[in-house]
Amino acid sequence: MTADNPIAGRVRLADLPLNADLRGRSPYGAPQLDVPVRLNTNENPYPPPPELVADVARAVEEAARELHRYPDRDAVALREDLARYLSGATGVPLTAANVWAANGSNEVLQQILQAFGGPGRTALGFEPSYSMHSIIAAGTRTEWVPAPRRADFSLDVERAAAVIAEHRPDVVFVTSPNNPTGQSVPVADVRRLVDAAPGLVVVDEAYAEFSSRPSAVTLLDELGHKLVVSRTMSKAFAFAGGRLGYLAAAPAVVDALQLVRLPYHLSVLTQAAARAALRHADQTLASVHRLSDERDRVAETLSATGFSVVPSDANFVLFGQFADADAVWRAYLDRGVLIRNVGVAGHLRVTVGTPEENEAFLAASKEIAAEHPLRARESSTGTEVSR
Amino acid sequence: MTADNPIAGRVRLADLPLNADLRGRSPYGAPQLDVPVRLNTNENPYPPPPELVADVARAVEEAARELHRYPDRDAVALREDLARYLSGATGVPLTAANVWAANGSNEVLQQILQAFGGPGRTALGFEPSYSMHSIIAAGTRTEWVPAPRRADFSLDVERAAAVIAEHRPDVVFVTSPNNPTGQSVPVADVRRLVDAAPGLVVVDEAYAEFSSRPSAVTLLDELGHKLVVSRTMSKAFAFAGGRLGYLAAAPAVVDALQLVRLPYHLSVLTQAAARAALRHADQTLASVHRLSDERDRVAETLSATGFSVVPSDANFVLFGQFADADAVWRAYLDRGVLIRNVGVAGHLRVTVGTPEENEAFLAASKEIAAEHPLRARESSTGTEVSR
Repeated sequence: MTADNPIAGRVRLADLPLNADLRGRSPYGAPQLDVPVRLNTNENPYPPPPELVADVARAVEEAARELHRYPDRDAVALREDLARYLSGATGVPLTAANVWAANGSNEVLQQILQAFGGPGRTALGFEPSYSMHSIIAAGTRTEWVPAPRRADFSLDVERAAAVIAEHRPDVVFVTSPNNPTGQSVPVADVRRLVDAAPGLVVVDEAYAEFSSRPSAVTLLDELGHKLVVSRTMSKAFAFAGGRLGYLAAAPAVVDALQLVRLPYHLSVLTQAAARAALRHADQTLASVHRLSDERDRVAETLSATGFSVVPSDANFVLFGQFADADAVWRAYLDRGVLIRNVGVAGHLRVTVGTPEENEAFLAASKEIAAEHPLRARESSTGTEVSR
Repeated sequence: MTADNPIAGRVRLADLPLNADLRGRSPYGAPQLDVPVRLNTNENPYPPPPELVADVARAVEEAARELHRYPDRDAVALREDLARYLSGATGVPLTAANVWAANGSNEVLQQILQAFGGPGRTALGFEPSYSMHSIIAAGTRTEWVPAPRRADFSLDVERAAAVIAEHRPDVVFVTSPNNPTGQSVPVADVRRLVDAAPGLVVVDEAYAEFSSRPSAVTLLDELGHKLVVSRTMSKAFAFAGGRLGYLAAAPAVVDALQLVRLPYHLSVLTQAAARAALRHADQTLASVHRLSDERDRVAETLSATGFSVVPSDANFVLFGQFADADAVWRAYLDRGVLIRNVGVAGHLRVTVGTPEENEAFLAASKEIAAEHPLRARESSTGTEVSR
């Protein structure tokens, strides 16, 4: 595609004066394939209800009349709405001053590392976890320190605290529920990690709505600037296409992020559409309960079929164990089911879909279990998983 | 606001473990004040036509039905539309492979410096110019090398080439027309600068549609990966609220930027709305000619009133010279006219508005000229302007 481009198509990527740490890399991202059943990116399978779509369209039409003007740079009204939602969900009296928003939680996390990471600083995370944490660390030239989980992917909090005390990272990422494994980190454990950390602890709660456990937001006042909780509208809110991530923190942390954000980073369209979606939160979040029930059904059926299943508090399930996970991934794709090979040895991750999608996945799973050798989880006990 | 916040309001910004280079800084951005005549951020004063607003709303409503799905990560259809527009405007046969887009040209420029700048690398620009260039350099930890312009703010290309040869920057920024001064850089001069540069030259053409000069895009095939031309829909397209910046380059440069972009950085809303706006390009761009005519009228009237006016190819005019530019800025504000003190000694920048807005500005200017001492431009000849 590149080589026959009429304009400078002769130039190759290898010829460019790229940063040394980018050479030979390829872009992050799951394959975007057009298959009947897409269970690979932890999207909410339920389309937004028609009332929400109409409200988004109305709000955007209103906002579009002022498209020639720059947006509210501080997105205050949106942050007020997010604070109201998060207060309702957690019982913590947050205001707009506690909330910051950006184009997806990736941009929120990038801003955190621009402000508190960077060259000469380190960020630590417990792997396997959301791989964008280490990618964003690299993008901000923050040294990445991978730390282990138990062989069953749960977090050994005393060991984690010891690793933090040893490495003294500027930023610690704790994903709860953890992606791609699914377990939550109890609030008491978050407190223990923050006590051990010399700098900030970012609890990435992208999947929090799918869990019945208390949110780390309940610790914010106690722990001051040392705790930041990030969230997203991509999953529970069925707003992946709208790109809206946010965080809750001490107001001073929000002030700090305004030093590194690009001015006018959130368009009037994003601000208007996200506010419209928040007005329909009750309706959208109803799907969360259905998905949690389906998750439990999928997990139980996989177990009964002979797979080993990691307990999940999120809208996905990590399961195995396969001698050749990539071959199994392809076997699902051959059956029209796109799931994700997240690079955890012997495992694959499936997003919980609609009951019909889950049926298609489970039917494929039965066939695949008969064809591909499964290994018991016990075989890896005692081994550290470091992806 | 911060101190009495119920959640961790006791924490102060100064207590945070911020990056050393951020300490004491304040966020970038013009004051967002609610005054009758806003001529401070180079917005297009003409609201989008009703047909465009309706088309944006329709496109967003359609896209909103799939809000639960992630957007096309590579924004191919939008990039095809941008390539088609830019080909039509410049006569250069660009394709989507030559074009990259992000949330405003600031994000495009940030991605360029993430890929080609960074710690241990340098970026150079000719000041005064768009101040986000140096701010984004700082944000990506790229060392910033300010280089001078002539006292009349034009670019001395031989001297510029010599400065480039001396400092050997990895990235050179050339703004044409230059913000906040207004002059264009001829295509032959761009070629001379690229010849002198060891790395990339980024020509920031945010205001190109207001100029009748040829675009640097016409040099792309000749100069290969060494030339990148950035553009925005904020100004001529009256799409500042929609946040859409883009660039044209060799396809290999676009491949390189995909290594540093955050995945799914452009929402379905942004992609749909920008495509709708591009369908109305002819209508929107008609305002450009009106604004160029008004710009010339404003500049001539200011000159006749006794101000010294920098020749402009853009939708703004830099004028002076004031003993106390800040006092004059306040004198305009007192008269309900918000213009911009861009930090160029003795000068202020006014955006070209509607004829009515320009009349209000010119009426205020007459009063102010009578009250505030003006100095002739000659007084600064031979002095370097380095802001």
